[in-house]
Amino acid sequence: MLESILNNVKHRKPIVHCITNAVTMNDCANALLAVGASPIMSDDIREVEEIVSISSALYINIGTLNDRTVESMLVAGKKAAQLGLPIVFDPVGAGASSLRTSISNMIIKDVGCSVIRGNASEIKSLASGISSTKGVDVAAADVVDSESKLIETVTMAQKLSMTTKSVIAITGETDIIADSQKAFIVRNGNALMEQVTGTGCMLTAVIAAFCGANKDNLIEATTAAICSFGLCGEIAYDKVIEMKTGTSSYRTYIIDAISLLEGNVLANRARMEKR
Amino acid sequence: MLESILNNVKHRKPIVHCITNAVTMNDCANALLAVGASPIMSDDIREVEEIVSISSALYINIGTLNDRTVESMLVAGKKAAQLGLPIVFDPVGAGASSLRTSISNMIIKDVGCSVIRGNASEIKSLASGISSTKGVDVAAADVVDSESKLIETVTMAQKLSMTTKSVIAITGETDIIADSQKAFIVRNGNALMEQVTGTGCMLTAVIAAFCGANKDNLIEATTAAICSFGLCGEIAYDKVIEMKTGTSSYRTYIIDAISLLEGNVLANRARMEKR
Amino acid sequence: MLESILNNVKHRKPIVHCITNAVTMNDCANALLAVGASPIMSDDIREVEEIVSISSALYINIGTLNDRTVESMLVAGKKAAQLGLPIVFDPVGAGASSLRTSISNMIIKDVGCSVIRGNASEIKSLASGISSTKGVDVAAADVVDSESKLIETVTMAQKLSMTTKSVIAITGETDIIADSQKAFIVRNGNALMEQVTGTGCMLTAVIAAFCGANKDNLIEATTAAICSFGLCGEIAYDKVIEMKTGTSSYRTYIIDAISLLEGNVLANRARMEKR
Repeated sequence: MLESILNNVKHRKPIVHCITNAVTMNDCANALLAVGASPIMSDDIREVEEIVSISSALYINIGTLNDRTVESMLVAGKKAAQLGLPIVFDPVGAGASSLRTSISNMIIKDVGCSVIRGNASEIKSLASGISSTKGVDVAAADVVDSESKLIETVTMAQKLSMTTKSVIAITGETDIIADSQKAFIVRNGNALMEQVTGTGCMLTAVIAAFCGANKDNLIEATTAAICSFGLCGEIAYDKVIEMKTGTSSYRTYIIDAISLLEGNVLANRARMEKR
Repeated sequence: MLESILNNVKHRKPIVHCITNAVTMNDCANALLAVGASPIMSDDIREVEEIVSISSALYINIGTLNDRTVESMLVAGKKAAQLGLPIVFDPVGAGASSLRTSISNMIIKDVGCSVIRGNASEIKSLASGISSTKGVDVAAADVVDSESKLIETVTMAQKLSMTTKSVIAITGETDIIADSQKAFIVRNGNALMEQVTGTGCMLTAVIAAFCGANKDNLIEATTAAICSFGLCGEIAYDKVIEMKTGTSSYRTYIIDAISLLEGNVLANRARMEKR
Repeated sequence: MLESILNNVKHRKPIVHCITNAVTMNDCANALLAVGASPIMSDDIREVEEIVSISSALYINIGTLNDRTVESMLVAGKKAAQLGLPIVFDPVGAGASSLRTSISNMIIKDVGCSVIRGNASEIKSLASGISSTKGVDVAAADVVDSESKLIETVTMAQKLSMTTKSVIAITGETDIIADSQKAFIVRNGNALMEQVTGTGCMLTAVIAAFCGANKDNLIEATTAAICSFGLCGEIAYDKVIEMKTGTSSYRTYIIDAISLLEGNVLANRARMEKR
């Protein structure tokens, strides 16, 4: 399954329309190109409907939201929904400010997202209204570090999936991908990824590419993207250790690994289970 | 010729005022510094006239255009024109949306550009009004992959040069630099450059630096910039193969190569012909 | 002293709220993560007070200022001042346009900054109203390249510190960190840092992290940050020479070195004197 999903991305080269934050826009574009997709960044309200119409997926990220771009997100999102395109949403910092939480909820309600990916604190703030976020990072209390915490978090994800009709992806040391019916658990990745800005944003962009190329299989496409990106984090980490380099080299190695990832390696090294 | 043009950039260290997209702004700044120029990014309408007045060239790129920045482009452009500065324009995504096409045409008409650089689809959409762009990438039908297609594309470039009074640069596997009188063909570069975001934007920024330091020689300066950047793409590609790395390392190696490029290497390895 | 200041950053992991320019935002975020801090970029006026309230320091940088973001800087700055947070200001291009000079003066007057870091020309334009800036780079006449120039520049810094109540940091070949009472001179760093965009911005971001984790010791925290960043520039330069790479690799190596910097290395290799 994973191999064919990855190969669909490489063969179909989906155009991904990105309305994303200014901090990691460049990394997202390079990650999309590395995986074989074609990014187009556009947030001018006068053209977003036209841009989304030539795209295979829409990626929305509120990392540096403002008045102007939120309006474009809503317009682009509604058009994408009309066209039946996958809409993949990254609610960066939901819970860190009431603005981010309320705009996230507005996007989810007014647009309807195919996939929502965040860390456990961000998703919790959407699911429960309770905020425990420490800036844009996960709060210690929300980390999925035990079997009981895993079960609790899967339940939260499935409940949120029922109300939003979205695939919910919660990423961290252990990743959870759930809809109302089933859940996948992924254990690829490396803790050093948290010390590089944009690993979450790039992952969500890559999910959009995978969904754009695998429209009938969104939960599996999301899971495959998360396995792929996590595995690239592992491959890159091995190189950091080998080369005795630091976090900026690590960023480079992650994107390198994406550009070099082959389906059979993904199939062999994915650490995924279905629940 | 190429060597002295490059050395003029290194010695004159032109300040290049950039009004460019948010995705690749950092890469453009680093490419300009690498070649010996001094970038200044400014798009606040209250200061662009003053900033352009201390600059040697103006670089305009509509990759993530919006209302606010387009207005600044027009104001800065008109001031640069008054001052006789080279104005180098990158119509990113012209043809991909009617907004981008019409704003490109407005900038060309109201400002008057010294150089316009795009891929074959972008230039075609400006020359003919016919759009075949696939997002921000060149459409398959527009790729210059045969002698007859080359002749057709040179003709299109020269015709557009006549109506715009601009040097027209069409880059891809084969690059064409034309004014109404003559044309240069450049065959430096590597296909992997398309898998790194911003190679087009960086190239246009570098053209602005070359033009800023060689004001009486714009078509030759543009050609030298395109040879230089393409050659750096080749040098960097050799290193990707040697080091077995991927597309993010490739980006790093390209900018590294720019910072290390010497005039005699450029003179020896440029693959350029005049038509 | 230096070692414990650095270790405080690593242990306290200060959240640094950044309102900074679009060119080097990504580098600032990665530099902050590398040193052990947690960046949050937010410039929407509707949330900046809430974001700054969960932060340990505020970093303001006017590198690509505009109407909207300047208003957010003022609102966030006033809230940070109320909360007693360190406010670290980078007046990029002060002197290059009258807008930048006047907005810098407005931020200093209306907000009150804990630390102001710039190159000698930027600080001079704030101290004297006289502009000699060449774009965003230091003017030749302002470079601190002799003992007499050093004394003159320390005097300027101390005078500005008296009127602004801020720690003044002037960085370049020789760095000066001064308040009204005392001054530190730092001689770490490497000239190649000027050929990488954002080294100044990253340094100011790192100062904000050091100040956020060492609130009772701002001048020493600023000095430690400048020693640390300069030393990382030296370590990275050694690697550029060893690996025969260029300026983009140099950027990577600088951030790598930050992520690997240990307190005892900093203590041993800092080149600092108190005056």
